[in-house]
Amino acid sequence: MSHNHLPSELVRDSKPSIWVEFTALAAECNAVNLGQGFPDNPAPKFATDILKEISLHPEQTPWHQYTRGFGHPRLVNALAKLYSKTLQTQVNPQTDILITVGAYLALYYSFLGWLNKGDEVIVLEPAYDSYLPQIKMAGGIPISVVMELSKNPKTSEDYKFDLNKIESKITNKTKMLVLNNPNNPTGKLFTRNELEGLAELVKKHDLIVVADEVYEWHVYPGHEMIRFATLPGMYERTITIGSAGKAFSVTGWKTGWAIAPSHLLQPLKNIHQNCIFTSITPIQEAIAQCFEKEIELIDAGKTSESYLLTGLSSQLERLRDRLVKSCSEAGLKPIVPQAGYFLMADFDSFDGPFKDAAGSSDLLDFRFVRWLCREKKLATIPPSAFYSDENKKGHDHFVRLCFFKKDQTLDAADEILKQFKK
Amino acid sequence: MSHNHLPSELVRDSKPSIWVEFTALAAECNAVNLGQGFPDNPAPKFATDILKEISLHPEQTPWHQYTRGFGHPRLVNALAKLYSKTLQTQVNPQTDILITVGAYLALYYSFLGWLNKGDEVIVLEPAYDSYLPQIKMAGGIPISVVMELSKNPKTSEDYKFDLNKIESKITNKTKMLVLNNPNNPTGKLFTRNELEGLAELVKKHDLIVVADEVYEWHVYPGHEMIRFATLPGMYERTITIGSAGKAFSVTGWKTGWAIAPSHLLQPLKNIHQNCIFTSITPIQEAIAQCFEKEIELIDAGKTSESYLLTGLSSQLERLRDRLVKSCSEAGLKPIVPQAGYFLMADFDSFDGPFKDAAGSSDLLDFRFVRWLCREKKLATIPPSAFYSDENKKGHDHFVRLCFFKKDQTLDAADEILKQFKK
Repeated sequence: MSHNHLPSELVRDSKPSIWVEFTALAAECNAVNLGQGFPDNPAPKFATDILKEISLHPEQTPWHQYTRGFGHPRLVNALAKLYSKTLQTQVNPQTDILITVGAYLALYYSFLGWLNKGDEVIVLEPAYDSYLPQIKMAGGIPISVVMELSKNPKTSEDYKFDLNKIESKITNKTKMLVLNNPNNPTGKLFTRNELEGLAELVKKHDLIVVADEVYEWHVYPGHEMIRFATLPGMYERTITIGSAGKAFSVTGWKTGWAIAPSHLLQPLKNIHQNCIFTSITPIQEAIAQCFEKEIELIDAGKTSESYLLTGLSSQLERLRDRLVKSCSEAGLKPIVPQAGYFLMADFDSFDGPFKDAAGSSDLLDFRFVRWLCREKKLATIPPSAFYSDENKKGHDHFVRLCFFKKDQTLDAADEILKQFKK
Repeated sequence: MSHNHLPSELVRDSKPSIWVEFTALAAECNAVNLGQGFPDNPAPKFATDILKEISLHPEQTPWHQYTRGFGHPRLVNALAKLYSKTLQTQVNPQTDILITVGAYLALYYSFLGWLNKGDEVIVLEPAYDSYLPQIKMAGGIPISVVMELSKNPKTSEDYKFDLNKIESKITNKTKMLVLNNPNNPTGKLFTRNELEGLAELVKKHDLIVVADEVYEWHVYPGHEMIRFATLPGMYERTITIGSAGKAFSVTGWKTGWAIAPSHLLQPLKNIHQNCIFTSITPIQEAIAQCFEKEIELIDAGKTSESYLLTGLSSQLERLRDRLVKSCSEAGLKPIVPQAGYFLMADFDSFDGPFKDAAGSSDLLDFRFVRWLCREKKLATIPPSAFYSDENKKGHDHFVRLCFFKKDQTLDAADEILKQFKK
């Protein structure tokens, strides 16, 4: 190193994300990959067909050059139409929507735009692993409340939280609640009763809510997605975060948004103006057209043809049930998710060399996941990564498996899991 | 507003960027648009053809789903090949390149990753208008040094800076120098002599250099692009920032990068991990293939067929010369740029209602640009926006015009400018 400077304080105790290790490990082992959350089946043809159409028109300046900074006009218009329905309020496309590079960036903006040094944020755990470092980078202090599994859990409904415990952690520094519904990694879908309880606390203690609802369309038949902003008085307090990469199963298209009344959205826009300024035009145009197609079907009452309302969850339900069966047969105890495309499975009854900590401070699930990948060629994710340091212990006997995969991939995983039975 | 919270301190004195006002104004007036810097001619067909090919393969998971966070493997490999040549050093694709959403995000990361509260950054003005708010948001203090025009300026070479003046502003808080070469808005291309003088200061005062070289391929025949990192000892101190949106004339594809030795790049990666985590896959794949094509032509010695080495600048030179002529004939005195696609033109000898400040505190160029857009339907950008507050006065008798436009657009601009002659 030829200079004598230290990096900014913001990043000095930054740790590598688990995705870096486990994505590399899966590739290195050439493993069957149920790790990172992306489909390995083909992207929906209607989406790539739209992108093809856009690429056939290089002369269309509005499709290939800079677009409006806060969001491509056609995309914010489509989203305003759709979310005015789902959020049950009038969403203004000009003021209430900000397009970002994935929901990830919308989360980053929400924390950086609202938190000051020492502001506290209530996070229900397990929680998507970006929240904690993002909150800390913004100067905030994550205050974790664990959702515990009830006895003999069968489904993700069995993850429960205690409102009193949450309230006991609220102080005069508490500014925000992050709610991930449906929850990653558990697949928990919050009930109206649970959400109303949270809304009461939010009102009583004057909180802002970051509602990460990226799996809003991945809800299994018989269950209802209740968006937090639809609860009485909550739209005014809620930054709703969504994702087109998730909605249309093209995670690499990385386009998300924050929707909120303009007073809540303004600080996010201010960061955006210094950060990326504007998102990628052809992808925004493609996603706008995907949503227009969906809105048309929904408006025409053709919900059975809608990808978001029917196609996605019916495709996923079958895959979920396959993996549940494979896990059960292998002796991994699955928690059947009500939503999302992840499955938590308890490997407590499993035995193997991973049980021996061998003097390492690594948690059990990290040891299991590494062993499973290296020795059995099955890549998964250790869910203790979704808990803060003080809560990891006791939550390290699960694996998270992604089942949004081709049948061949799930067949291969089934083969591997069958070995355990023997 | 239903809650009692203030946004984070980071954004409290954020101002709207000039692009918001002037992009909206151009649209509102339905003006001939020589304002914002993007081509309105078709995107290169080879680039959109590659995107078409990608969209024809929804089954290609590596093209449509999440890719490697720090950069799509195929893209970092192509960039490492190309920049190992242009930067005259071995660029490691795994450790020395970070792919971002536009050069804009690479700038943001550079400031946020390296600056602490009170760190000073030398900025040569006029400077791209994002630098100052980005530096301030990171807690840094921009220290401006103005490049002044020599008497009777003809070309962008006539923008000169004084090394002693720069050195006089360096303190023990100075950590960084931002160098925009070729410079936007002036089109100035720094000479080897000038760069060597800067490199000496950099070494003497132990500075880090952010070299924003996004117009590196837009250099007119007879001029040489000297990349800062190629100067002796400078690669170790330089974060080189580039842009595929600029290289391939698809500004809406918003893909940029930072290239630096890994010790300089690490803090940027740490921010990236919390900010967007990964960039958009199909666009990265498309750009990778564009660069592969270019590398092949260059390696085969077919530079006359290369878009980057020949196609771009020959197309632009003709357009530049057209606009120079239109401006000169109208009595706007152009500063002929050696690089880039902007032209600075002095409107001092012009008369009109905009000369009357009418009690407003707006600068002359802002008044001229608004009047030109509203009354004459020609959209441009006021370059005083590229100076810090204390330097705006005296630098407000120019307009910035973008000439990377269709012939019809330049014809229409010429018609408008001809009216002034009468």
